[in-house]
Amino acid sequence: MLPPTLILASGSEIRARLLTQAGVRFETRPVRIDENAVRDAFLAEGASPRDLADALAEMKALRPRIVDVLVLGADQVLECDGRIYAKPETPVDAIDHLRQLSGRTHHLYSAAVVCRDGVPLWRHVGHVRMTMHPLSEAFIRDYVARNWDSIRHAVGCYKLEEEGVRLFSRIDGDYFSILGLPLIELLTWLRARGEMST
Amino acid sequence: MLPPTLILASGSEIRARLLTQAGVRFETRPVRIDENAVRDAFLAEGASPRDLADALAEMKALRPRIVDVLVLGADQVLECDGRIYAKPETPVDAIDHLRQLSGRTHHLYSAAVVCRDGVPLWRHVGHVRMTMHPLSEAFIRDYVARNWDSIRHAVGCYKLEEEGVRLFSRIDGDYFSILGLPLIELLTWLRARGEMST
Repeated sequence: MLPPTLILASGSEIRARLLTQAGVRFETRPVRIDENAVRDAFLAEGASPRDLADALAEMKALRPRIVDVLVLGADQVLECDGRIYAKPETPVDAIDHLRQLSGRTHHLYSAAVVCRDGVPLWRHVGHVRMTMHPLSEAFIRDYVARNWDSIRHAVGCYKLEEEGVRLFSRIDGDYFSILGLPLIELLTWLRARGEMST
Repeated sequence: MLPPTLILASGSEIRARLLTQAGVRFETRPVRIDENAVRDAFLAEGASPRDLADALAEMKALRPRIVDVLVLGADQVLECDGRIYAKPETPVDAIDHLRQLSGRTHHLYSAAVVCRDGVPLWRHVGHVRMTMHPLSEAFIRDYVARNWDSIRHAVGCYKLEEEGVRLFSRIDGDYFSILGLPLIELLTWLRARGEMST
């Protein structure tokens, strides 16, 4: 058995699936961060959504105490008209978020940081602009009822690889950053280090 | 049972999956076009890759003889340094194509046309720029051996949702156009017609 190329410091199913499909050898170590507290502290200091995503990804990458191995942390922040949106905690939250995002352009910042022995070695923040159609109240309620089990884990209350694609009139940016991991940039860095052959 | 919103004039699994995930009601009617003959005829007349993709999509959309229903045809054309690449017919083809694409930027043109009663009602061609890492001969051979069953159906010999993502250093353009259907634009048009609520 070859050793893993990296440790994924995240319990996110989609990030694990992306790495698996790309052929990266990895092990998973989910970490717990009080994201709400970190977010509030950062925003109180006037940090940008991009810096917040980057900081949360780094915190996750620094958490597992494992020596001599690459650790990947990742985080995604959604900003719309100056407000940051976390994952919806209830269907009522999801309905509220979608009402706010309806007909507007929001921004996704998808950050990844790789650390080794407590030192950040690489970082990248992908940025995507997402424009939603104006959504009717009836559609929002039906959509949330149909999709709650899936979208409860999704910032923005959509999965683009499912019915969420219907919500959008325009998308500018990288698909993998929408899913929550700037995969092309990560793989390119691993390749340059000789961790993955091509 | 509600009637289908459209007929998909294609046997492509990925296009069917995209429509299903987006919640479009459709039926499939695969059509056969001699794509090589059409391509050769068009290119002999100096047509662009974009026009070729558009023409092939329209031919497919016009083929099913069904009255009073929307018929969707789609096609994807890959161009690199002036050469058009069809799907690989053999692993040797795939190795040859990847040798040519290695280290270069190629262009994908992903066309969709919707017809009704033999009249085109809507068309769109998505364009994506894809830049590959320089690939070693050994990697290309191993990659084709590992992935042949999957990539034999793929123009360019890659599936971005699988190991193919490793091949790329940069991608500029829409993910759905890479998969072979400009889905956001299609759904937006269906929505504007009142065929899909949001």
